[in-house]
Amino acid sequence: MSEKMWKTRISTHIDKKAYVRGYELEELIGNLTFTEAIYLVLKGELPTEKEKKMLDIIFVSIIEHSIAPPSVLAARSVISGGNSLHVGVGAGVLAFGEAHGGALEDAMKFFQENVNKNPEEVVKEYLTNKKRIAGFGHKFFKDFDPRTKKILEYAKKLDFYGKYVKFAIKVEKAIEKIKGKKLVMNVDGAIASVVSEMGFDWRLGKGFFIIGRIPGLVAHAYEELVYEKPFSKRLNEDEEVEYLGVKPRKLPDEYKNR
Amino acid sequence: MSEKMWKTRISTHIDKKAYVRGYELEELIGNLTFTEAIYLVLKGELPTEKEKKMLDIIFVSIIEHSIAPPSVLAARSVISGGNSLHVGVGAGVLAFGEAHGGALEDAMKFFQENVNKNPEEVVKEYLTNKKRIAGFGHKFFKDFDPRTKKILEYAKKLDFYGKYVKFAIKVEKAIEKIKGKKLVMNVDGAIASVVSEMGFDWRLGKGFFIIGRIPGLVAHAYEELVYEKPFSKRLNEDEEVEYLGVKPRKLPDEYKNR
Amino acid sequence: MSEKMWKTRISTHIDKKAYVRGYELEELIGNLTFTEAIYLVLKGELPTEKEKKMLDIIFVSIIEHSIAPPSVLAARSVISGGNSLHVGVGAGVLAFGEAHGGALEDAMKFFQENVNKNPEEVVKEYLTNKKRIAGFGHKFFKDFDPRTKKILEYAKKLDFYGKYVKFAIKVEKAIEKIKGKKLVMNVDGAIASVVSEMGFDWRLGKGFFIIGRIPGLVAHAYEELVYEKPFSKRLNEDEEVEYLGVKPRKLPDEYKNR
Amino acid sequence: MSEKMWKTRISTHIDKKAYVRGYELEELIGNLTFTEAIYLVLKGELPTEKEKKMLDIIFVSIIEHSIAPPSVLAARSVISGGNSLHVGVGAGVLAFGEAHGGALEDAMKFFQENVNKNPEEVVKEYLTNKKRIAGFGHKFFKDFDPRTKKILEYAKKLDFYGKYVKFAIKVEKAIEKIKGKKLVMNVDGAIASVVSEMGFDWRLGKGFFIIGRIPGLVAHAYEELVYEKPFSKRLNEDEEVEYLGVKPRKLPDEYKNR
Repeated sequence: MSEKMWKTRISTHIDKKAYVRGYELEELIGNLTFTEAIYLVLKGELPTEKEKKMLDIIFVSIIEHSIAPPSVLAARSVISGGNSLHVGVGAGVLAFGEAHGGALEDAMKFFQENVNKNPEEVVKEYLTNKKRIAGFGHKFFKDFDPRTKKILEYAKKLDFYGKYVKFAIKVEKAIEKIKGKKLVMNVDGAIASVVSEMGFDWRLGKGFFIIGRIPGLVAHAYEELVYEKPFSKRLNEDEEVEYLGVKPRKLPDEYKNR
Repeated sequence: MSEKMWKTRISTHIDKKAYVRGYELEELIGNLTFTEAIYLVLKGELPTEKEKKMLDIIFVSIIEHSIAPPSVLAARSVISGGNSLHVGVGAGVLAFGEAHGGALEDAMKFFQENVNKNPEEVVKEYLTNKKRIAGFGHKFFKDFDPRTKKILEYAKKLDFYGKYVKFAIKVEKAIEKIKGKKLVMNVDGAIASVVSEMGFDWRLGKGFFIIGRIPGLVAHAYEELVYEKPFSKRLNEDEEVEYLGVKPRKLPDEYKNR
Repeated sequence: MSEKMWKTRISTHIDKKAYVRGYELEELIGNLTFTEAIYLVLKGELPTEKEKKMLDIIFVSIIEHSIAPPSVLAARSVISGGNSLHVGVGAGVLAFGEAHGGALEDAMKFFQENVNKNPEEVVKEYLTNKKRIAGFGHKFFKDFDPRTKKILEYAKKLDFYGKYVKFAIKVEKAIEKIKGKKLVMNVDGAIASVVSEMGFDWRLGKGFFIIGRIPGLVAHAYEELVYEKPFSKRLNEDEEVEYLGVKPRKLPDEYKNR
Repeated sequence: MSEKMWKTRISTHIDKKAYVRGYELEELIGNLTFTEAIYLVLKGELPTEKEKKMLDIIFVSIIEHSIAPPSVLAARSVISGGNSLHVGVGAGVLAFGEAHGGALEDAMKFFQENVNKNPEEVVKEYLTNKKRIAGFGHKFFKDFDPRTKKILEYAKKLDFYGKYVKFAIKVEKAIEKIKGKKLVMNVDGAIASVVSEMGFDWRLGKGFFIIGRIPGLVAHAYEELVYEKPFSKRLNEDEEVEYLGVKPRKLPDEYKNR
């Protein structure tokens, strides 16, 4: 076989030294912050000071969000089965599906596919065909989402207030105009517009959510491991579970003693 | 490189035909039951009628055990994050750690390492050194475990009532004698003694649990997928979560506007 | 809260006894084969002798398929990282995505959505809109797939040769007629038509693949655990990996000693 | 039930605002770097400038290490099965077992359990009982590990050169003296001594590895997703796999037509 089966652009070894995106790993240690190194690994180039600062803002805004999300329940349940820390964290990452971090990716896709179109026409087309516009709407916030406000303020200060952010804002207005009801740009929409501005591909979208949230997952898995008993019953069958199945019944005789 | 990096004893292809443990897969279809084929894949040989029957009994006794175990919580939480069926089932399998299916493996190890020793001395040594003897003890059953009774009755009928089963029974008696309190041989202990009798290595122990329980996990993941909304809150933060962390506090000024 | 947060139709406990789909688990032990119990767990009712036999045929046809598929590589890589059996098997299940077992589910969906339509029109519509018809086509087999032949023979013998199977056969013919080239009904297509015939929902499709293949995954994870060294290098970086990234370069001075 | 089933110290919601370790999440955005926020989530308190800098060094030194490790093979195999980004990354995290990131945790445990003992006696006891001392020894580096050198230089500069680091250095010397052969303190040993110095519990050890390496995993999963075909055969069965199983054989007649 002439062509090699595995190909990568991310890192390599030369003379037993590790190179990441062309830079010797050893040289990065002490010179780059973690966030700068993340940018390098994902994008292939070093960030400017502003890109680094914007990425810090994004990751911090995602880092932890209480014990209730599916990812934390999954992580803590798996630890409760008597597993090591990494198995719980891995299970937590699995929960980051369409409904849990997916909006960030979907909003990036929406912005990147439509940014050069007329926002009102795009919104009209989506609403007419009952397609969901990711990144807009919030359970509690009806006027504005405070995290969105903060992220967009920083985006302005750090020069990421370009065509994607402006398009997102126009979409918010177009939804209100066409639907007759405001759906605020939520934190997923805000982050999606800014990372699009930074030049990241929407297919990497879930990656930002994973990297940003993993510290929270690690903390929860650790807390479960250290403070709780294995197989501690979290679900009280008698009180919290409704059984909707068939009533007890007898196994028919023809299935017995065959 | 002269030696190949991947080696297997399980299956191969010859002239585009798949062979499993030496038998052409196509020939197995229609001739073997699933349980017989499982035995073949795991053991390398075809089972006798009695081995097949015993394995059916073991898998059926494990197949499903309510919505409350960590594996089901993990599976359903992951589906709730907006994932496909297999991702939920995979997360459920991850929960089968030391405390969830591990007793079967541990009991097999215990029996296989000690079967040729004096049961009373083994028990004395374990109790003295506060080592846990897996496969004995049950939350509810203090006299006998009904599933154990059933499995051992079949073991007798099917000729698997040999040295491992007898050793397990002696261990139960020795614990009662030395500890002054009965710890009934539970279903893990019963299965462990029987599969040891059938010649299976203890390191495969968790495998029986995985294969036997996977249909239950599939059913739960499917039920969540079809009947429940994604990201449906299962944990009411206000009512079910106790916050034990530090009280709200202000970010010190030196961390601001740097 | 009046309504309970967790609901299930699969199993429950009454007076400390486990009931699966209404039957006492204890009564199933010894009376049902594993395949019969799987049918019960998934479908909610006991299978007839023919349903049981058909399901055995389906699971056996899927049980193991060499060391090369992504699921086995994932499972063995995870074990190679120094993990327990169940973590490797869980990772293997995760690999069962759209491209690995997905065709079975997709074909079930296709059959169940279109069975009452004219096969030629359905095929024409799919081909015109370049939509993929799952369950047809094979890399090696251009005339017929021997496993399909076998499964359909049994379907006839066991009375599952009804409208879904007939529709699938007509689709195969319509593709040949319209496309001018035969795409054989493959094993996914055959299984999909038969389980549709048995009344299973397509959203459970991947579940058949998972249950059927898990014994193979367990065997591979066990083989890796017992015969191979942890972290044994399977990928020779020098010989098998092509590095397509940027050449070594120096870290710019402005990133140093900040 | 009086006591609540779920407890946490990490975060909570008050009046619809998220608090992380007591600080309002919104206030952290823009004020903390990602690394500072990670420290806060894991430790419960804000880091000093030196602690932040040291943590950056540790994460950067772990961030990516070529395509060959089991975690990358697992992640890319799972993506190759036709899965979303997060499923591949989750599978990659699962590979971080005993042999892949475990040395960091083991070395932390070793240092934290023995730091107040005589290093020579500890080493003697370990070598006599053939217990492995994690964090020492390297395949290539026989004199010193350049990353260790770098990390310890920074530890000195940033005031983390305390009793754990000194103990680790003494252990390296004791091994050379007692064994008569140098086993260099490797990067796991260096990191383990420094994070112990920072007051982190060894049971959190794998967490540092997970957080630090996840960006590399995300980059590999993304690369596979975007540049490679699903189910692209990475393992050439004919050339790379050695079949060690039984030769083809016929199914005995008694298994046919039953």
